[in-house]
Amino acid sequence: MKKYSEMSFEEMKLEHEKLEKLYKDYRYQALSLDMSRGKPSPAQLDLSNGMMDVLNSQEDLSCSDGFDCRNYGVLNGIPEAKELMADIMEVNPDNIIIFGNSSLNIMFDFISRSYHHGVMGHTPWCKLPKVKFLCVVPGYDRHFRITEYFGIEMINIPMLPTGPDMDMVESLVSTDDAIKGIWCVPKYSNPTGNSYSDETVRRFARLKPAAPDFRIYWDNAYTIHHLYDDHQDHLIEILAECKRAGNPDMVYKFASTSKISFPGSGIAMAAASLNNLEDIRRCLEVQTIGHDKVNQLRHVKFFKDIHGVSEHMEKHAEILRPKFEIVEKILHEELDDLDIGWWTEPRGGYFISFNSIPGCAKDIVLTAKKAGVKLTPAGATFPYGIDPEDRNIRLAPSFPGNDEISIAIRLFTLCVKLVTIEKMIAQHNSEAEQ
Amino acid sequence: MKKYSEMSFEEMKLEHEKLEKLYKDYRYQALSLDMSRGKPSPAQLDLSNGMMDVLNSQEDLSCSDGFDCRNYGVLNGIPEAKELMADIMEVNPDNIIIFGNSSLNIMFDFISRSYHHGVMGHTPWCKLPKVKFLCVVPGYDRHFRITEYFGIEMINIPMLPTGPDMDMVESLVSTDDAIKGIWCVPKYSNPTGNSYSDETVRRFARLKPAAPDFRIYWDNAYTIHHLYDDHQDHLIEILAECKRAGNPDMVYKFASTSKISFPGSGIAMAAASLNNLEDIRRCLEVQTIGHDKVNQLRHVKFFKDIHGVSEHMEKHAEILRPKFEIVEKILHEELDDLDIGWWTEPRGGYFISFNSIPGCAKDIVLTAKKAGVKLTPAGATFPYGIDPEDRNIRLAPSFPGNDEISIAIRLFTLCVKLVTIEKMIAQHNSEAEQ
Repeated sequence: MKKYSEMSFEEMKLEHEKLEKLYKDYRYQALSLDMSRGKPSPAQLDLSNGMMDVLNSQEDLSCSDGFDCRNYGVLNGIPEAKELMADIMEVNPDNIIIFGNSSLNIMFDFISRSYHHGVMGHTPWCKLPKVKFLCVVPGYDRHFRITEYFGIEMINIPMLPTGPDMDMVESLVSTDDAIKGIWCVPKYSNPTGNSYSDETVRRFARLKPAAPDFRIYWDNAYTIHHLYDDHQDHLIEILAECKRAGNPDMVYKFASTSKISFPGSGIAMAAASLNNLEDIRRCLEVQTIGHDKVNQLRHVKFFKDIHGVSEHMEKHAEILRPKFEIVEKILHEELDDLDIGWWTEPRGGYFISFNSIPGCAKDIVLTAKKAGVKLTPAGATFPYGIDPEDRNIRLAPSFPGNDEISIAIRLFTLCVKLVTIEKMIAQHNSEAEQ
Repeated sequence: MKKYSEMSFEEMKLEHEKLEKLYKDYRYQALSLDMSRGKPSPAQLDLSNGMMDVLNSQEDLSCSDGFDCRNYGVLNGIPEAKELMADIMEVNPDNIIIFGNSSLNIMFDFISRSYHHGVMGHTPWCKLPKVKFLCVVPGYDRHFRITEYFGIEMINIPMLPTGPDMDMVESLVSTDDAIKGIWCVPKYSNPTGNSYSDETVRRFARLKPAAPDFRIYWDNAYTIHHLYDDHQDHLIEILAECKRAGNPDMVYKFASTSKISFPGSGIAMAAASLNNLEDIRRCLEVQTIGHDKVNQLRHVKFFKDIHGVSEHMEKHAEILRPKFEIVEKILHEELDDLDIGWWTEPRGGYFISFNSIPGCAKDIVLTAKKAGVKLTPAGATFPYGIDPEDRNIRLAPSFPGNDEISIAIRLFTLCVKLVTIEKMIAQHNSEAEQ
């Protein structure tokens, strides 16, 4: 097929007519499909149903050090859960605190604590005239909403194939002491699906921030969420790397079992240097007596150890992989050579990131919606919901069934073509008028 | 036995010698008993072990509206859990949000939110020169630690048999707009065990606060935690009463199942007016995607309805009641008529509040500790850990076994006598010197 940019005006109009007819056919079908949510599918959730059987009324609900998990207490998590979660996070159990069911909630609390009490003795952010955050874009909307909620100014940092643009990060962080942090999803990133290169991680660990309370918010949400057995991404462990670089306190690391066991009924954790953990605990011990230890015990009894978790993640991959392959196959079939859309083909995580030509993303999402296919709102992957080029769309294939994905993505590509050609025709007309 | 105050100096010295000998005998026993913790005993926890059986891998884990509890979502709680918790809290399910495992954490978050974002559009407390809180004393140390953590000035309000001194509350609240809240445990209060009278609740609902963002923090932690079938305290429902009085937004109400099912693995909730809930949700939806719905479902399947909860609480009472009776019996046997100690005899809750003559509480706790009996630190029941009269001690009989309680309280009364008589002898000597 011819590139759109090489079409004559007549060819464009013909193509437009053809696409409009196809689009009408879709609208007659009254579809109702949802490609917007990064949620595991029911089949994935079924993998963890056995977690409901591992504890029972006859069971001793004490943890390895004899503490009764049913009662109050244990602020940092039970020993065996700390060990398992430390293995998932690739750190020492001493560097971990286990929290409640949501790593997002941990991150919110970390920002909140920094805002009202400051970081390790530094001025609380609420007492400063201005606080800024770096945001790798496209990125995770819920990160951006937290910093927006606290009135923190967000600065876009472009995502490159190797990770964030580190020249820009280094230059900004070293010169502006109002910059207190950067949001990162370093592995199988949301939504681009790529992982930070070794060099990027090493440059992160060697940042020389102007602000002594600058922290890297390292949300390793997809740390073991591979799609393939054979080709997997590997990420340098950031805590160790920061220590090696003489910046042991510069990073907070987050993870959860939300996309391992049950989202919302999993366990979430943070890892950091002992100095940071001490600072965190001064707040945490005022905030709560302890998190849900029975659920911690349940997870350990179900997964047993990191090998159990790895086997479990392979089963997730078997369900997820075909979904990603369907999306990629259809994108190739429909858009290859047209030069009107570009997308990532990740080896893990939950998303495919799609870029149209500039100025089309909002219209594509709207056009798909009118035909019954819900996509993540255009702009959602940028701070303040504003994609400066209006071209990024996050595709989330995890939840719908395979047949639904086929239909939805086929329609999506049609919308991409239709919106693009309309834009080109309008441009042609406006140029002709001049 | 003679009142200590009526003893001659010689009698005092004889009594002191006798007590010292008895105390030495205790020290030889090398006891190690703990009367400090308001924790349920293992026997109480056993009552909820069945909760581990109600869900299993074959079970449908959807809630009543068909939502899959295993997955992300549902910010306010699943419908059946809201209904059950609303029954426990005596409010409408629409007025409830179900949170995580800890009502303390909810309260912390409410104060934190008010501090960084303000209450329903009013100035965030972090932007005010001064914020004050009223604290009913003696009260719950963990409440006071939250307000202390946020640098909020705390003002003591004496607890009377009818509840807080309402003359003082009304006068302060109506004249000082820096006063933003009051900590209350209105039923079977911690540690005094009394409940607010109808008149007290009505006066609360009719407060005319100078600060529009003043809120009553109504921690109904012991709402159904009766010790007796026959004589129980009744508390007017505060949300309805505030609405009736034209102050619908003036109260936040808190509760949890921590002392109903498993502490730390229960569920916690807040109730408030719809206006307040909307304000709370604006923060909550940034903070988390949802709390643990599987655990909400587990609780509903185990308790079924409010009648199931009530029956369950009777079983708790059967275990707790004898413990309170042992404490009260020994206090009577040892201290009646001496006029050196006064204590509460609550109909519910977890504590007995003991008052010595002024200036003795710290020494009593220390003397007991030296003989191997750990008590709640003297002063813990007051803001900043400072009991101005140094006389209040919280006794927590729930956790130890009945035999242990007997020994611990017998020793405790000995320490009360010993410290009191030592104080009286010292006073006599110092007067003689003058």
